[in-house]
Amino acid sequence: MKRKDVAVYEDILKSNVAAAAEVRRRMRERGVLTVNLMSSPGAGKTTLLERLVEKLTPPGRLAVIEGDIETERDAERLRAKGVPAWQIQTGGACHLEARMIGRLLDELPPDLDFLFIENVGNLVCPAAFDLGESLRVVLLSAPEGDDKPKKYPKAFLTAQVLVLSKADLMGLLPFDPERARREALEVNPALEVFRVSALTGEGLDDFVACLHRARAKLTPEDGRHA
Amino acid sequence: MKRKDVAVYEDILKSNVAAAAEVRRRMRERGVLTVNLMSSPGAGKTTLLERLVEKLTPPGRLAVIEGDIETERDAERLRAKGVPAWQIQTGGACHLEARMIGRLLDELPPDLDFLFIENVGNLVCPAAFDLGESLRVVLLSAPEGDDKPKKYPKAFLTAQVLVLSKADLMGLLPFDPERARREALEVNPALEVFRVSALTGEGLDDFVACLHRARAKLTPEDGRHA
Repeated sequence: MKRKDVAVYEDILKSNVAAAAEVRRRMRERGVLTVNLMSSPGAGKTTLLERLVEKLTPPGRLAVIEGDIETERDAERLRAKGVPAWQIQTGGACHLEARMIGRLLDELPPDLDFLFIENVGNLVCPAAFDLGESLRVVLLSAPEGDDKPKKYPKAFLTAQVLVLSKADLMGLLPFDPERARREALEVNPALEVFRVSALTGEGLDDFVACLHRARAKLTPEDGRHA
Repeated sequence: MKRKDVAVYEDILKSNVAAAAEVRRRMRERGVLTVNLMSSPGAGKTTLLERLVEKLTPPGRLAVIEGDIETERDAERLRAKGVPAWQIQTGGACHLEARMIGRLLDELPPDLDFLFIENVGNLVCPAAFDLGESLRVVLLSAPEGDDKPKKYPKAFLTAQVLVLSKADLMGLLPFDPERARREALEVNPALEVFRVSALTGEGLDDFVACLHRARAKLTPEDGRHA
C-alpha cells in the first residue's frame, strides 16, 4: 500500500478499536459472552450455531448476529430454530466492523447469556477487526486442508479457540488433525483446540463447556479478549 | 466506508486497471492464456493445477504464479511437478494485484502457452482486482455448500468459468450441484460450468478443452476478459 492508503487503513482500525471497546463494555456489564466466529466460507459456522442452540443451557438465552456479503439466509436458518437473529448484509465488504455490531445492541433481548456473531466467510480480512467480542473462535474444516494455519496465520494468531470442524469427514479426506493442531499451536501456543462434528455431535459438549467457562470468567474490565 | 476511504480505494483500483492492461497486452502478444484462479481457502486450486500439469499438451509450456499470505508451500508443490513456479507472499494482504504479476513477467520462460495465477484463498476480495488475466476461473468445492454463489456473488459475476470442485465428495455431502449451478447462472448467465474431481479425474478433460478453446480465441486487443 502507498503511504496515503496505509494512513486511511490505520484510521479505520483506530475508529474500530473505540467502537469495539464500547461493545465489549456494554455486553460485559450485562454478563453476556460475545463470541466472534470466523472462518472460510462453508466451514460450518451456521451449522455449528444451529447445534449450539440445542445444547446451550438454560435454553433461549442467546442471540445471533449474522454477517454476509449478500442474502438473509443464515439469519433465517437461526430464526427457524427460534433464535433472535439479525442479518448484516455488508454489500461487498469482506468483514464486519464493530460499529455494525454497536448499532444492533439496543435491539437485543434483555436476558442473554451469549451473543454469537458469525463473521463474513473469509479467513483473512475479519481477523484484523475486533468486534468487541470476549471470545474469538476460528473454525478450520477438514476439507480445507491441514496446511491452512501457517498460510493464513492471523485468524489463528488472534483467536483463543480453534474448532477443527467437519470431524466426521476426517477419515475420508487427506486431513491430519494432529498436523492442523500442531501448526495452529506453532502460530499461537495459547489456542484451545476442539475437534467437532456438528453432524454427529462429536466434541460439541467439550466446546459448549468451554463457552460456559469463558462466560464464567467474564469481568467488566475492557481487556481485549481477556 | 467514509468518503476519504472510498477515494483511496478508487485510486487503488484505478492504478490496478492500468497495470492489468499492461499484463494482458504483454501476455497476449506472446500468445499466452493467463488464467486467474479464485476460490475460498482449500477449495482445491493447487491440486487442480497439479493435475493440469499432467493434462495440458504439449507438456511443459505452462508456468504458475502462486499467491498466499504466508509460506512458499504451493509453489513448492508445483515445482515438484517440474513446473516453473513463483510464490508471491502478500504478508497479510487479502488478494493479488496486477502490479505484483507485472513484476514477474520478465522472469517467465520464453515459450509458454498458459500462465496460471493462483490467487489468495478468499472468495471476496480477489474478485475486485483484475490481474491482467484473459480467463477468470472461480472454484466452488462441494464441502463449501451449494448456497455460496448468491452469498458471495462478485467472484461468480466476474468469472467466465465456474469449476464445481471435489466432485468425488458430492454424494457424501449435502451439496446439490444443480442448485449450485442454477444459483451461479442466476448471478451470471454467461458462466461456463464444469464439475471436476482432481482426485478421480472426472471432468478434467472437459475443463482442459475449455482452456485450449480460450487460448485459441485470444486476440491481441486488450478487452477485459475478452
